[in-house]
Amino acid sequence: MQHGESNARIEPRRRAPWRDKWYRIIFESDTPAGRLFDVVLMVAIVLSVLTVFVESVRSIRFRFGSVLFGLEWAFTLLFSVEFALRIATAKRPMRYVFSFFGLVDILSILPTYLSLALPGSQYFLSVRSLRLLRAFRVFKLSKFLREANVLSTALLASGRKITVFLSTVSMLVVVIGSVMYMIEGEENGFTDIPTSIYWAIVTLTTVGYGDVSPHTPLGKTLASLVMILGYSIIAVPTGIVTVEMSQAKKRADAEKSCPQCGKTGHDLDARFCKHCGAAL
Amino acid sequence: MQHGESNARIEPRRRAPWRDKWYRIIFESDTPAGRLFDVVLMVAIVLSVLTVFVESVRSIRFRFGSVLFGLEWAFTLLFSVEFALRIATAKRPMRYVFSFFGLVDILSILPTYLSLALPGSQYFLSVRSLRLLRAFRVFKLSKFLREANVLSTALLASGRKITVFLSTVSMLVVVIGSVMYMIEGEENGFTDIPTSIYWAIVTLTTVGYGDVSPHTPLGKTLASLVMILGYSIIAVPTGIVTVEMSQAKKRADAEKSCPQCGKTGHDLDARFCKHCGAAL
Amino acid sequence: MQHGESNARIEPRRRAPWRDKWYRIIFESDTPAGRLFDVVLMVAIVLSVLTVFVESVRSIRFRFGSVLFGLEWAFTLLFSVEFALRIATAKRPMRYVFSFFGLVDILSILPTYLSLALPGSQYFLSVRSLRLLRAFRVFKLSKFLREANVLSTALLASGRKITVFLSTVSMLVVVIGSVMYMIEGEENGFTDIPTSIYWAIVTLTTVGYGDVSPHTPLGKTLASLVMILGYSIIAVPTGIVTVEMSQAKKRADAEKSCPQCGKTGHDLDARFCKHCGAAL
Amino acid sequence: MQHGESNARIEPRRRAPWRDKWYRIIFESDTPAGRLFDVVLMVAIVLSVLTVFVESVRSIRFRFGSVLFGLEWAFTLLFSVEFALRIATAKRPMRYVFSFFGLVDILSILPTYLSLALPGSQYFLSVRSLRLLRAFRVFKLSKFLREANVLSTALLASGRKITVFLSTVSMLVVVIGSVMYMIEGEENGFTDIPTSIYWAIVTLTTVGYGDVSPHTPLGKTLASLVMILGYSIIAVPTGIVTVEMSQAKKRADAEKSCPQCGKTGHDLDARFCKHCGAAL
Repeated sequence: MQHGESNARIEPRRRAPWRDKWYRIIFESDTPAGRLFDVVLMVAIVLSVLTVFVESVRSIRFRFGSVLFGLEWAFTLLFSVEFALRIATAKRPMRYVFSFFGLVDILSILPTYLSLALPGSQYFLSVRSLRLLRAFRVFKLSKFLREANVLSTALLASGRKITVFLSTVSMLVVVIGSVMYMIEGEENGFTDIPTSIYWAIVTLTTVGYGDVSPHTPLGKTLASLVMILGYSIIAVPTGIVTVEMSQAKKRADAEKSCPQCGKTGHDLDARFCKHCGAAL
Repeated sequence: MQHGESNARIEPRRRAPWRDKWYRIIFESDTPAGRLFDVVLMVAIVLSVLTVFVESVRSIRFRFGSVLFGLEWAFTLLFSVEFALRIATAKRPMRYVFSFFGLVDILSILPTYLSLALPGSQYFLSVRSLRLLRAFRVFKLSKFLREANVLSTALLASGRKITVFLSTVSMLVVVIGSVMYMIEGEENGFTDIPTSIYWAIVTLTTVGYGDVSPHTPLGKTLASLVMILGYSIIAVPTGIVTVEMSQAKKRADAEKSCPQCGKTGHDLDARFCKHCGAAL
Repeated sequence: MQHGESNARIEPRRRAPWRDKWYRIIFESDTPAGRLFDVVLMVAIVLSVLTVFVESVRSIRFRFGSVLFGLEWAFTLLFSVEFALRIATAKRPMRYVFSFFGLVDILSILPTYLSLALPGSQYFLSVRSLRLLRAFRVFKLSKFLREANVLSTALLASGRKITVFLSTVSMLVVVIGSVMYMIEGEENGFTDIPTSIYWAIVTLTTVGYGDVSPHTPLGKTLASLVMILGYSIIAVPTGIVTVEMSQAKKRADAEKSCPQCGKTGHDLDARFCKHCGAAL
Repeated sequence: MQHGESNARIEPRRRAPWRDKWYRIIFESDTPAGRLFDVVLMVAIVLSVLTVFVESVRSIRFRFGSVLFGLEWAFTLLFSVEFALRIATAKRPMRYVFSFFGLVDILSILPTYLSLALPGSQYFLSVRSLRLLRAFRVFKLSKFLREANVLSTALLASGRKITVFLSTVSMLVVVIGSVMYMIEGEENGFTDIPTSIYWAIVTLTTVGYGDVSPHTPLGKTLASLVMILGYSIIAVPTGIVTVEMSQAKKRADAEKSCPQCGKTGHDLDARFCKHCGAAL
């Protein structure tokens, strides 16, 4: 949670008691009321996102347009009330508003109000799907947070290696795309270099839509090489992340040290030091 | 085997001897007769599933319809007799019926009988393919069971990490799909948000059917990013599972037991028992 | 090399000296003449396979038909002479003929002779591409043989786990295919259960041709789940093979033991035991 | 950096001081001026490559042709001046010209000049995209260089294993392609053996364009096997690279040096130096 409220607790208690009570319900989830609030909110988020999905389907919009319109406003008003409560109870309201979740909360309700001023902006409304990002709050639950931390630590630790990898892939894709544009040309669907690069990415990542594909023998030969290359170099990010995860796992496992010899590396279920035999 | 018959053996032997004999043949596979029963059953299952496959092909159904009808009833009767025998010999019949394999056994014979009452329910009949699930009984064979255990242990151990991974992927896919719906719009095949999300999954997992694909330059650019993202993050589940498997393997390898307390689970370089401190 | 000639050397030398000399040239590659023979043979194999490729292209066959016909017979006669020499010099001719490479050698020359008796059997002629399998002989070179051994050891060691994995995937694919046949039906391209299973394999392995793809909302939802499943479980074979390779590598690295304490696990460049400090 | 200028420093300083000064700016990046030069160059490279991309789009070329023509010549002149400076200041000009980056630099400016002599050679101009390869110079930055080294060491160390893997894949693909040509034939899109092999590569690497796909039941069955094979053997390069990376990581981690002989490369659990036997 990036709203950094925790270290704000040492300030003198001038706040009304209802604010503290609601703060605990809304921002925390270690009380029954807090947990209930989270569950209700999660259900409302998922239902409102499903409404957005369903509304985008033309046939449903034509038949149930008014029902969906009502539901949409109900959810918007609910989220508006929740947003107002969050501002009212937050210890540092401005900090909350400009935090990641604050901005997502605003993005979740703004499009509906804007649609009154700018009618017909239907595509723009799909931005409300971003409401689902609010569901990330569920990771407040500590057991998931820990796993999420292990994963993101491993990814960050291998960040620089992955940068080198992605830079190399980007340059490869530009060079392959340009060469393919020369070989196949506009008459075979490689209408310009950006399209050729798009094809190179589609092929190297083994996605393979087939909307652009080579027709000349030389083009097919180069495409075959690109495929085998893509098929092989996927091993590189996999290797990077696996090694980092293995390290992260080992670090977590080896955090107990022996009181006698001071050595670490014991298993989670060990009761005696495996190096000197002393009780842990 | 989830029917938990093994700890039912201590109850007093009021059962007829033929029931015990047939129980051993049908439910176990450590006698020659039991093994023969398993092999015959396996062949019947595979043949009956092939009949279901072949029957679904229009041209074959038109030409050999009556033969297939006869075969189908032959297999159904055979499996019905087998099911009756299982109920008759099982130590706790109700427990067997509501076990995983009991339900699969019922699903294997029910559709054919139902087709008498509800003629023309041809599509529904394909549920008989689930008969193949019965073949999972072959994993009773202990050598495969052990390997299957190692695999499922590794997958379960990484379950929480994989939950975090799949949640993140799900939210990514919703956000990407909604943004793509805005960019490409209905005229380019992204007819609604669910279709856009379907496209995002097809692309992120590198499946790439090509039934929906971006046409605008901006859409192709976003699609390229999604592909490279999908190509990279496949490293995450791979890393998770590899690390867990490596751990499972090590645990299995380190099963030398302590001479004093008899416990296992020591590291390869351990010189003292980590449970009781005795020298290994 | 599966022709097991090496342990045939202890038999009394009644063979003509030219046979031994040619045996060494043809079957072995540790003399300059033997190496030259291998290189010439490899070039002839690759050229003859290229001839087969080129001959299958209609426009080239029409224009250069007679040239290709001549080349084809030249290669066939060359390989026939080589085959005759192999039989003449092999220590156990029958054993060679029925070995893997013996059968491939026969398959390499037979189709051309058969085409005289059965003219017009053009498709059948493409079996001559199997000549390329003869090029596997190049792995006789010891440095590649060692790496090939490490790879095949790792694959064999994980064979049983991979069997369990592939069985599970096969059953999954049958069940998914049957359910999809019920959902989508014949009017959406899922014409019968085998086609549905083919679709399930195309999707689960993330190949994604797009020749069959779901059209109903429910079908697309199931397809999305299958894709995410396929995207995730690819981690399983990868994890299996990685762990086995890591083991194979460690075994190879840890083959030196300390003369004083007898412990192993030293690096390839170690000159002193890392456990007791004794010189290795 | 492959121009090997560093060990040329010991030669007597007959060079003009401006050459040394500019050498440091152009070839090195450890001074503020050198870093600024690198940044400006990088921006110019990226902009010029974007110009090449944009110029290849027909509609933009028709409307902004003259602007792009002017930009192109501006970049070409800029890179020509830079190239002249590099030759003038390099300690061994010829060595620079024939180094990898020297050739890329020539390829970056030559096509534009050639287009004066050979007008209409539009496709050929796309070779200018290779300019992007010059951006690889950014890896001079030491922190990336180290990561790039770890990656390339791991790939080189597994080079022989990957050669065996790719040879096996190549032969597999030829054999599968030839068999598929026999099964499906020209009327189903498998017009010749090279096309069949192209299909086999598209399928085995899980790219799956769908421009060629099997139509006969036997063909679909073989295709299914090829897909499952491709889905499984991707584990092999991944395993190879992961194991090598794990080794490379361990070596880097074990760089604590011996107090007596100063050598490094000890294991994490080593208590005695493996080179001289001294206690660590």
